[in-house]
Amino acid sequence: MTKFKGIAASDGIAIASAFRLTEPDLSFNKETIKDSDAEIARLNQAIEVSKQELRTIQQRTLKDLGRHEAEVFKAHIAILSDPELLKRIKTMIETRHVNAEYALKNVSDSYIQIFNSMTDNDYLKQRSTDIKDVMKRVLSHLLGVPLSDPALIDHQVIIIAHDLTPSDTAQFVPNYVKGIVSDMGGRTSHSAIMSRTMEIPAVVGFQGSLADIKDGDPVIVDGLTGNVIVKPTADERQAYHEKQRQYQQRNEQLGAFRNAATTSSDGKHPIIAANIGTLDDLQAAIDNGAEGIGLFRTEFLYMDSDKLPSEEAQFNVYKTVVQKMAGKPVIFRTADIGGDKDLPYLHTPHEANPFLGYRAIRMSLDQPDVFRTQLRALIRASAFGNLSIMFPMIATVTEFKHAKRIFEDERTKLVAKDIPVGNIKLGIMVEVPAAALLADQFANVVDFMSIGTNDLIQYVMAADRGNRRISYLYQPYNPAVLRLIKSVIDACHDNGTPAYMCGEMAGDQKAIPILVGMGLNEFSMSATSILKSRALIKELDSREMVTLANKTVSLASTSQQVLKYVHQALEKP
Amino acid sequence: MTKFKGIAASDGIAIASAFRLTEPDLSFNKETIKDSDAEIARLNQAIEVSKQELRTIQQRTLKDLGRHEAEVFKAHIAILSDPELLKRIKTMIETRHVNAEYALKNVSDSYIQIFNSMTDNDYLKQRSTDIKDVMKRVLSHLLGVPLSDPALIDHQVIIIAHDLTPSDTAQFVPNYVKGIVSDMGGRTSHSAIMSRTMEIPAVVGFQGSLADIKDGDPVIVDGLTGNVIVKPTADERQAYHEKQRQYQQRNEQLGAFRNAATTSSDGKHPIIAANIGTLDDLQAAIDNGAEGIGLFRTEFLYMDSDKLPSEEAQFNVYKTVVQKMAGKPVIFRTADIGGDKDLPYLHTPHEANPFLGYRAIRMSLDQPDVFRTQLRALIRASAFGNLSIMFPMIATVTEFKHAKRIFEDERTKLVAKDIPVGNIKLGIMVEVPAAALLADQFANVVDFMSIGTNDLIQYVMAADRGNRRISYLYQPYNPAVLRLIKSVIDACHDNGTPAYMCGEMAGDQKAIPILVGMGLNEFSMSATSILKSRALIKELDSREMVTLANKTVSLASTSQQVLKYVHQALEKP
Repeated sequence: MTKFKGIAASDGIAIASAFRLTEPDLSFNKETIKDSDAEIARLNQAIEVSKQELRTIQQRTLKDLGRHEAEVFKAHIAILSDPELLKRIKTMIETRHVNAEYALKNVSDSYIQIFNSMTDNDYLKQRSTDIKDVMKRVLSHLLGVPLSDPALIDHQVIIIAHDLTPSDTAQFVPNYVKGIVSDMGGRTSHSAIMSRTMEIPAVVGFQGSLADIKDGDPVIVDGLTGNVIVKPTADERQAYHEKQRQYQQRNEQLGAFRNAATTSSDGKHPIIAANIGTLDDLQAAIDNGAEGIGLFRTEFLYMDSDKLPSEEAQFNVYKTVVQKMAGKPVIFRTADIGGDKDLPYLHTPHEANPFLGYRAIRMSLDQPDVFRTQLRALIRASAFGNLSIMFPMIATVTEFKHAKRIFEDERTKLVAKDIPVGNIKLGIMVEVPAAALLADQFANVVDFMSIGTNDLIQYVMAADRGNRRISYLYQPYNPAVLRLIKSVIDACHDNGTPAYMCGEMAGDQKAIPILVGMGLNEFSMSATSILKSRALIKELDSREMVTLANKTVSLASTSQQVLKYVHQALEKP
Repeated sequence: MTKFKGIAASDGIAIASAFRLTEPDLSFNKETIKDSDAEIARLNQAIEVSKQELRTIQQRTLKDLGRHEAEVFKAHIAILSDPELLKRIKTMIETRHVNAEYALKNVSDSYIQIFNSMTDNDYLKQRSTDIKDVMKRVLSHLLGVPLSDPALIDHQVIIIAHDLTPSDTAQFVPNYVKGIVSDMGGRTSHSAIMSRTMEIPAVVGFQGSLADIKDGDPVIVDGLTGNVIVKPTADERQAYHEKQRQYQQRNEQLGAFRNAATTSSDGKHPIIAANIGTLDDLQAAIDNGAEGIGLFRTEFLYMDSDKLPSEEAQFNVYKTVVQKMAGKPVIFRTADIGGDKDLPYLHTPHEANPFLGYRAIRMSLDQPDVFRTQLRALIRASAFGNLSIMFPMIATVTEFKHAKRIFEDERTKLVAKDIPVGNIKLGIMVEVPAAALLADQFANVVDFMSIGTNDLIQYVMAADRGNRRISYLYQPYNPAVLRLIKSVIDACHDNGTPAYMCGEMAGDQKAIPILVGMGLNEFSMSATSILKSRALIKELDSREMVTLANKTVSLASTSQQVLKYVHQALEKP
């Protein structure tokens, strides 16, 4: 028996035999080509076949997994339609008389190198992975070497792979692929996200050598801890069967909380809402018993398209969401575009520090036409349900007042046209430290605040959460972060303003006890965290959690001390 | 008479006749060249002559203005020695049979485009200006068109130019060039910095049309307000002569404060220290009556060289500084490398958000060899004067303790070798919001704190100070920033720890009254701000400033309100 560690990327326990997804041999020689036209025709042919395959995979993914998961293949097809990239490859074949394989590899490697050198950011790194994935497919057609086809697996296996491409993952048949182990990738890679959506337990960033796992070896994948056990002993196997059973039982028990209210053991009622970005996510939120939508990320509407979404298209989406939520509160965040969410059609400039740049409300106030269109769509949708609007990246009171004036202007114009309008609450995301520090002043002018911990933490710690070299500084439990959060909640409550949270921290099982103690009114999280969070809150006495919260902000000087206090508070006497 | 506005770039008033620095005609045609070797020889010749000229300018600048100002020409010579750049130009001449002018322009334009597209950051934009400046010189030699030579000016003038290159500015004879007006450039451009060093009044970013100013036109440049007046009336001219006289008188009066202590009208004694980066700066600090060095930016030692500075080289610099300060306190900041201060020989990675990345103490703790060398040099220098050390970008108490352990380890080893060691205080820069929010916890473990407002403000506001599109968010007077600063000073004083400031805000005449009210112990600023700040503090009653400070943090919700309170507090009844 051998034990290995990796990064837990998708929950659950899997026990099955290993299936090594081997790399095809795509090696080739550089050759001198006399007939450039014929070589270019051969390239065009390989590209067309690849595009056709990608369209098939895209359609299958759309059907089996949903629109968001299928997006990546749209991006892949777009790469193969990029005139600049294709022109470069063809020019190379023409002017340097090389074979298509060489030109393809040479040009795509230079693209990959540019993307890799440009950044440490996961989001942009992904683009180089996409190009690699696509180019492998074209190369396989040029060489006539078939890519391994995971769709052909016909028995229960644990996939063992150096690197999983999104197209590999999309072709897995969930009934047969029980678990995944890969060398590469982090929790935020496409493959990791897709394995979570497909509910396949996965460990990525494997720290052992994959060569030690042979085809057919029995393997246990523990997606809860990141453990991988090869050729387990009978005892170990039994222990994991038991762990697997408990995991499934726990999942079934959580189902009982689907339609329950969120109630602490002493009768407090915070709301658990969901963070969503698409209509697909909405169904998952409803299925998991969300009591509202605490964050609808409207930028997906802008990023899924190659032009600005029309008022009508937006109105239809917003209306559907509030109607489906049937009176439960829905908070829409106006577009948080810019930063790492680049839109070519809006001519967002490349910036030295996009996270400290021209994005979100800063762009909305500077280019108010786009903002006004979105506000009109939202105001019109408000007639069909319980709708609130919040502005992202608000740093100053002046910015909020400016945004509110624009909102009121559009609202007045719609009312003048006899268009029905609901009662809309206006709030802000508290993610810029300046807004958190001035929460008492903001409380005088807003209807609610929602703390966006993902960005707030990175600004408070001055640490890009996508930068692996300093990932140790992304500390949600740092007492500095907790003090700031507490001061926002206190300022809200002093003024009778509700305090919400829609960052990942709101669904973090170690942070929830502290946040209950601080009196947070709404926890908005990804749908898959709702049931376990509701179960956790049911166990908590909010009065004990007040003591815990006070200890973390007044006594602790490090994250470690905070976690120790949380651990102590959750231990039953 | 015509009045224009621009950006005030260098203090003072100048009145003289216009001298238009016109652009030479460097146009050329693309030509097909048969003898590539001869063309490359022609290029080499032009490059060599340009390098020789640049060396002459560099020497003259070094002599007249100092080492820091001469650095830019070292960079220019380095561009002309870059093998990659030269290879590209030569390859283009060889393979595409074009003339040297075309190849030079084509390759350098692609470099300029890359630098411009890469970033909105002033620091990196400067590189494209450098390449432009250098390429113009080489092109002028290729074409045999002489560049205009500002060194030949032999009467008193105001220079009128579209864009001033650093080499233009360096050639000005201060006795003849009385003022500068230019279309391009910001306050942080090389030319603006050099005109301040040369004490030539300057307005950059001119908002009128330079075509409206003819050679010989009488012009007034007001470098205090950014006003430019062409063909002034007799009244206007007289008013500005009076303003010029007052400016000079005020400068002379300030001289009286050179050797005075800094004392508020009610007898409080904050210290005014200087921020410096080189030995050249040190002399200016002493000449302006600095009571200490509040910030020695040691990274210049790393950036001026193409390899790591040795312990011995560092020791000599540090020892000289503390000896010259003759017992007055000197605080050295350990190297703040990374971020936008990229060092090729340290292999600092390119990052998506360098200001939120791997830099300063984060790099020091991760690559401790470089850090340990610097600490040894500092510890050895401590025997020769009053030396303190502070760590930049500290975010957590754990990081400080880690850095302190390394310091104590090196100190113990030196003491064991009988090397004399002084009494060294250890502190932190408070520039990451997390450190400011936990100042009470830090106060238990550090000897002093120095608030670095330049970075602190950009993190609190989540706004890159180099990004022009969001420059409105770089708000030193925002009440959020002031609250955080006050909480740091209060936490320090509650614990008997001194609170210093070494950001630009410490020398800001509108911020000083608030900071005096908060009880800041040391104001560390650029040498040129010391005398006027000392004069200002002499006028302030610290008790009235306490009231002002409290109003700004408790009542104001915007920067505008804060400035109104400051204005009111400074008005004499």
